[in-house]
Amino acid sequence: MQTQTLERMESDVRTYSRSFPVVFTKAQNARLTDEDGREYIDFLAGAGTLNYGHNNPHIKQALVDYLASDGIVHGLDFWTAAKRDYLETLEALILKPRGLEYKVHFPGPTGTNAVEAAIRLARVAKGRHNIVTFTNGFHGVTMGALATTGNRKFREATGGIPTQGAAFLPFDGYLGEGTDTLDYFEKLLGDKSGGLDVPAAVIIETVQGEGGINVSGLEWLKRLEGICRAHDILLIVDDIQAGCGRTGKFFSFEHAGVIPDIVTNSKSLSGFGLPFAHVLMRPELDKWKPGQYNGTFRGFNLAFTTAAATLRKYWSDDTFERDVQRKGRVVADRFQKIAAWLGEQGIEASERGRGLMRGIDVGSGDIADKITAKAFENGLVIETSGQDGEVVKCLCPLTITDEDLVEGLDILEASAKQALS
Amino acid sequence: MQTQTLERMESDVRTYSRSFPVVFTKAQNARLTDEDGREYIDFLAGAGTLNYGHNNPHIKQALVDYLASDGIVHGLDFWTAAKRDYLETLEALILKPRGLEYKVHFPGPTGTNAVEAAIRLARVAKGRHNIVTFTNGFHGVTMGALATTGNRKFREATGGIPTQGAAFLPFDGYLGEGTDTLDYFEKLLGDKSGGLDVPAAVIIETVQGEGGINVSGLEWLKRLEGICRAHDILLIVDDIQAGCGRTGKFFSFEHAGVIPDIVTNSKSLSGFGLPFAHVLMRPELDKWKPGQYNGTFRGFNLAFTTAAATLRKYWSDDTFERDVQRKGRVVADRFQKIAAWLGEQGIEASERGRGLMRGIDVGSGDIADKITAKAFENGLVIETSGQDGEVVKCLCPLTITDEDLVEGLDILEASAKQALS
Amino acid sequence: MQTQTLERMESDVRTYSRSFPVVFTKAQNARLTDEDGREYIDFLAGAGTLNYGHNNPHIKQALVDYLASDGIVHGLDFWTAAKRDYLETLEALILKPRGLEYKVHFPGPTGTNAVEAAIRLARVAKGRHNIVTFTNGFHGVTMGALATTGNRKFREATGGIPTQGAAFLPFDGYLGEGTDTLDYFEKLLGDKSGGLDVPAAVIIETVQGEGGINVSGLEWLKRLEGICRAHDILLIVDDIQAGCGRTGKFFSFEHAGVIPDIVTNSKSLSGFGLPFAHVLMRPELDKWKPGQYNGTFRGFNLAFTTAAATLRKYWSDDTFERDVQRKGRVVADRFQKIAAWLGEQGIEASERGRGLMRGIDVGSGDIADKITAKAFENGLVIETSGQDGEVVKCLCPLTITDEDLVEGLDILEASAKQALS
Amino acid sequence: MQTQTLERMESDVRTYSRSFPVVFTKAQNARLTDEDGREYIDFLAGAGTLNYGHNNPHIKQALVDYLASDGIVHGLDFWTAAKRDYLETLEALILKPRGLEYKVHFPGPTGTNAVEAAIRLARVAKGRHNIVTFTNGFHGVTMGALATTGNRKFREATGGIPTQGAAFLPFDGYLGEGTDTLDYFEKLLGDKSGGLDVPAAVIIETVQGEGGINVSGLEWLKRLEGICRAHDILLIVDDIQAGCGRTGKFFSFEHAGVIPDIVTNSKSLSGFGLPFAHVLMRPELDKWKPGQYNGTFRGFNLAFTTAAATLRKYWSDDTFERDVQRKGRVVADRFQKIAAWLGEQGIEASERGRGLMRGIDVGSGDIADKITAKAFENGLVIETSGQDGEVVKCLCPLTITDEDLVEGLDILEASAKQALS
Repeated sequence: MQTQTLERMESDVRTYSRSFPVVFTKAQNARLTDEDGREYIDFLAGAGTLNYGHNNPHIKQALVDYLASDGIVHGLDFWTAAKRDYLETLEALILKPRGLEYKVHFPGPTGTNAVEAAIRLARVAKGRHNIVTFTNGFHGVTMGALATTGNRKFREATGGIPTQGAAFLPFDGYLGEGTDTLDYFEKLLGDKSGGLDVPAAVIIETVQGEGGINVSGLEWLKRLEGICRAHDILLIVDDIQAGCGRTGKFFSFEHAGVIPDIVTNSKSLSGFGLPFAHVLMRPELDKWKPGQYNGTFRGFNLAFTTAAATLRKYWSDDTFERDVQRKGRVVADRFQKIAAWLGEQGIEASERGRGLMRGIDVGSGDIADKITAKAFENGLVIETSGQDGEVVKCLCPLTITDEDLVEGLDILEASAKQALS
Repeated sequence: MQTQTLERMESDVRTYSRSFPVVFTKAQNARLTDEDGREYIDFLAGAGTLNYGHNNPHIKQALVDYLASDGIVHGLDFWTAAKRDYLETLEALILKPRGLEYKVHFPGPTGTNAVEAAIRLARVAKGRHNIVTFTNGFHGVTMGALATTGNRKFREATGGIPTQGAAFLPFDGYLGEGTDTLDYFEKLLGDKSGGLDVPAAVIIETVQGEGGINVSGLEWLKRLEGICRAHDILLIVDDIQAGCGRTGKFFSFEHAGVIPDIVTNSKSLSGFGLPFAHVLMRPELDKWKPGQYNGTFRGFNLAFTTAAATLRKYWSDDTFERDVQRKGRVVADRFQKIAAWLGEQGIEASERGRGLMRGIDVGSGDIADKITAKAFENGLVIETSGQDGEVVKCLCPLTITDEDLVEGLDILEASAKQALS
Repeated sequence: MQTQTLERMESDVRTYSRSFPVVFTKAQNARLTDEDGREYIDFLAGAGTLNYGHNNPHIKQALVDYLASDGIVHGLDFWTAAKRDYLETLEALILKPRGLEYKVHFPGPTGTNAVEAAIRLARVAKGRHNIVTFTNGFHGVTMGALATTGNRKFREATGGIPTQGAAFLPFDGYLGEGTDTLDYFEKLLGDKSGGLDVPAAVIIETVQGEGGINVSGLEWLKRLEGICRAHDILLIVDDIQAGCGRTGKFFSFEHAGVIPDIVTNSKSLSGFGLPFAHVLMRPELDKWKPGQYNGTFRGFNLAFTTAAATLRKYWSDDTFERDVQRKGRVVADRFQKIAAWLGEQGIEASERGRGLMRGIDVGSGDIADKITAKAFENGLVIETSGQDGEVVKCLCPLTITDEDLVEGLDILEASAKQALS
Repeated sequence: MQTQTLERMESDVRTYSRSFPVVFTKAQNARLTDEDGREYIDFLAGAGTLNYGHNNPHIKQALVDYLASDGIVHGLDFWTAAKRDYLETLEALILKPRGLEYKVHFPGPTGTNAVEAAIRLARVAKGRHNIVTFTNGFHGVTMGALATTGNRKFREATGGIPTQGAAFLPFDGYLGEGTDTLDYFEKLLGDKSGGLDVPAAVIIETVQGEGGINVSGLEWLKRLEGICRAHDILLIVDDIQAGCGRTGKFFSFEHAGVIPDIVTNSKSLSGFGLPFAHVLMRPELDKWKPGQYNGTFRGFNLAFTTAAATLRKYWSDDTFERDVQRKGRVVADRFQKIAAWLGEQGIEASERGRGLMRGIDVGSGDIADKITAKAFENGLVIETSGQDGEVVKCLCPLTITDEDLVEGLDILEASAKQALS
């Protein structure tokens, strides 16, 4: 494989090509193929962007048909038939059945743009600048979003501009088993000299992806919602990684029965890996004036097309949800087994996750790296997450076949054993 | 046309659907079609995103072929054959012939993400936080980029967070005919108590698009480059709107013979309206550590594919450039004629621009709105720009046929006369 | 008493004249006299500024002598004999006996100026921007210091500028009895994505005055010092209110045996109520370049004179310290008795403090206000502190006579009983 | 003279002791005496703090009498007879005769505290964050004030925190003779995408002291006032250095006939070199809530006493003003003579100033340093100002005797000749 041009011309900022230093050429559902024809099972899936697999044929057909019709590809925020179809489908298949009433904002087609729009809207709506975010949260790296992202790698690379407008509080479980971290939040809210500026909003991932598959408790989320209501604070669920079915429901917050004021989605929203994002907001929060937040690629019509096709294919009933939940249990069971084996080797490890968003915390980035490096040798693409990369993280396509899922898990288990025996 | 769902569900932030309240369905090169089958000539072209027209068949073919091959669509920043091909083509057809040596960073696929990456890199590279930007500049609306964007509509919608890290200086011509605004910049640089923090970089659009087709002089740009060199300040050309051939050269700065340290491109870079952006940087400025700036859609393989096809089709020799320049003169001549007619009606008006980035300044947003509203009635999509929307702005596809170009200009001229007689 | 001019001309920002709406004319040690000749015992003492009483005759004599000699009153930061004498006395009587080696910076003569200088120096010395501060901390209200002050009254009055460069952590005891809040700090320091930017320094009041006489444990302080050392973080003790003998030692941190990297003093430092402040720093931290931090009144020679006289009078041996500790126990005993009586009335109350910095937490600002209002009627000036003003706070002169101390306590006890029976 | 302790113990931030490395002991009016008994004429006068000379006997008497009476020295913001007397005297002798109606806020007793209070009040009153300030302006170094101060020495010593909330515009004359810099300001105000956030206020020194005795034109100031009125922007005159009679009127803005919305005074306000400051504001701007801006030394009663004595002594009629103006002409004449002589030596030099705030711009800091160093050898204390220290600046006491004034000027002239012949 010829990689010199890539190594010479691409910025040193590149990262995945360091862990997986091959040139990929093709992909189908949960399988990637490199230039030498070698196949890999994909447990990374675009870090949650390919919930419906690579080159999903149903979705691709909709895309190709649209292209063949000379449909509008780019039209800023023009009204198009594709946009209308997406909105109608979203309402009929997702919002209405869940009792949700939201207006929709299409910001620039990436997660960080959606987060910037969401927190700015919250500030405008409430007339307050502060946003509460949580330890190990990841919400993007443009300067507005970065204020809510915990990772020092990004925070220290701003060239001397401190972020502003956000305060970190401990995520569920951060202070140990016995402590409900919301006690601290509630105490600070009631404390006139505690240093917490009354926030416009709280932003949260119900399951933290980059942060290490940290799963917030359903009661805890419900209590968080209650605190927000009691203090007139907006609740923003950043469902960019955990949404679109990843946890076994379309929205990750459905498990807890909470109703956010604002929701951000991106990653798998297009269903096909196309850049796409939207912000959902309770109608009365739509304080935007025309054009106050813009961007050239807001409203990408190919993505409207594939997103609508995806909703129709997978979200017309609960078959898909139940299948994801079933596969999630398969992964959980195997991860527990692997964790148990690691325990026998003296490596404290534990499984955690919700739906098909799952990880094994092996306690150290070095150990996790050994396992994932060996897995790649053995034909499995899988990455780590967490503050030190100590969590081996499975985000396989939700559409993965049972055969590929089991094969991938087999490879992972064998790789752990090879790496650590 | 059914628009109720669109009006009900889409956020009030929507803007173009207010000026052009129809549902578009199809498009081909410079022609848009609405749901009632009515055709429009497109002098907006995605605000500079569709330099190669809607649904350009050469580019579409490359896209469809890639999809048919099950090529990687989304792979974070994996190495792919499509990425390699893009880099090689960019180097061979664009950089080498122009004597440019740049490394390439693929940030999130929008202009504002590219600007955030560019200014952050400049800050890291120079260890200084300040970025000099210019009156009427537009560089995006995420919080980092917004600091360099002059428009109050965006700046006042942050919900109480002032932007930081940038200082505005007068663009070429801002202080009137006799004054070289760089005198002021140079004086401030040399003044230890002038209040200008020594900047890491200057960011500039050589022709300001949103700001009102303000054209910086070639000597002025050359002097700006010299000042930057003399004071160890990086020069960033934001070529998101003016690049990709719009001014009659691939890069807008080629006219002046300056070589920026960092360049941002997006909008027409994919050639097909797909979200895509890159940052070019002199190799020694590549101070990024792995993963310090990330994003899910960095490196969109469909866009690599279409972008490479675009370069091969249009940038293998100078035929296309010369054609753009020729068409630019056609527009300029007609705009001067229209401006002259307006003058006869007592409306002070003037033409300006470079290549096919051209406008008529009619002195007031009201007058400009009357003209463009009438033009839309007559089948021409065209928008205004400038601080008060006082500039009627032509950004037609560079690939527009001569027939459509003349027809569009005829409509515009007739509309001006109908609107203002 | 004529108060119309005062009410008409002074800004509504005035505050103490609302609680004590009389015109004071004279004062001696712990006694204030108003224009009608009424005397009050002073348990407020300039909020800790008059540790040596009003118009202390020893100190006043030094001041009058200096004035009589036509000594330099104002000389920017000239070298003067008065400054030299102060430095020599500080070194001989305070620093050397305590094994401390500090350089001295004279910023503008107020606490907030000293805090601004201290945190700026820490940032410069460590090349990091973040300062860790604690819930209920008060460090001044100029914009730099305000970032470290928790009180919303000030934080919400910036006119839309969020503070930056500081993060709040829970003070000792904030998370309840069983929880060592430093566990959270230590966890965040070790967490690469916890959202805590590695701080340049921690700033702390060992006993929080405005925050409600919150007393940090001596072990806790020692552990805090250890964490700072382990992570190369500077420890700044803001001893503006708790220093100068208030807690029974010259510096409040002596009790714990910690040695801060930087110390701020002001309030009682002059000994006579004159504006005066200094910043003490370990010599290797003196990263200032000449003139990088300035101010017109840096180095106020009358204050040098009175401060040196104060040190000579009270700090040549440990007599004074022991006397303060003795009086502190007198106050503590009586406060416990009052708290017990309140408990009998069904008002949960508790005593706390260190040395002569003591309070009774009566659980609500309303109750505290009733007590202090009644006390003022009865001839005692005493204020409240804490997030809701729920702590009746005694900061009487350290030089108060035993008679006045007991009389003041008698008034307070009687007032509580009158107010709440 | 013993200076080791001073050199060892005082922070390297010290600055005046580097230019004048002697230990001063006594001072009377315009004469300083060092420890060896050597006398110096003082043309620095505390950088404008000692307008009434060192140890002015009239003012000192008031101070000593007050001390003898056991008057309140420190009482936070208590009402005191001294405060009331100051307010009444200020109203009667200063405000009423000038037709001014202001409320008075006593912030912490330094200039920077006053500026922080003034700009914060402006932001609160107008609900906007931006403050327009001018090139070469100096308004203090605490973080809020620093945003409005141009000097890089301070701006670069924040340890990585960029200032925020202010924008610099060119001071009168900054763009050269033919250009009225207010044209630029007015253009930016009217430009919706010029990058200037609509300001809450403009802050200006009518004569810039630290910036190099830059004198704003009276017409220009009047026009500035008009622009502010027309755009609902507050005008803050920072009269900390130029006020209290320095320019030949009590307030420097009287010359232009403008009426600021807010005025800051400090430096010479106490008349005796005591730390003291007030903010004057139009009554309807007093948006402060009780205690929203505080500080331990707000309202220093010794300074109330001396300030009132000063007003009574010097501002009961216009005798003093006229005397200052007369002496100003003496200085101006001699400075023109010196400038002319320098011109003959090939050094381009010019005199400028207003009242007794005067300088000779000698074009380079090196030349200015040579002159002032030689002057110090010859018994004259005088400093430089301006961005490169290129302006030899005379701020002698306004009360200087004619003999001392002439002797000081003689020394300066001779020193220039010795240094540069």
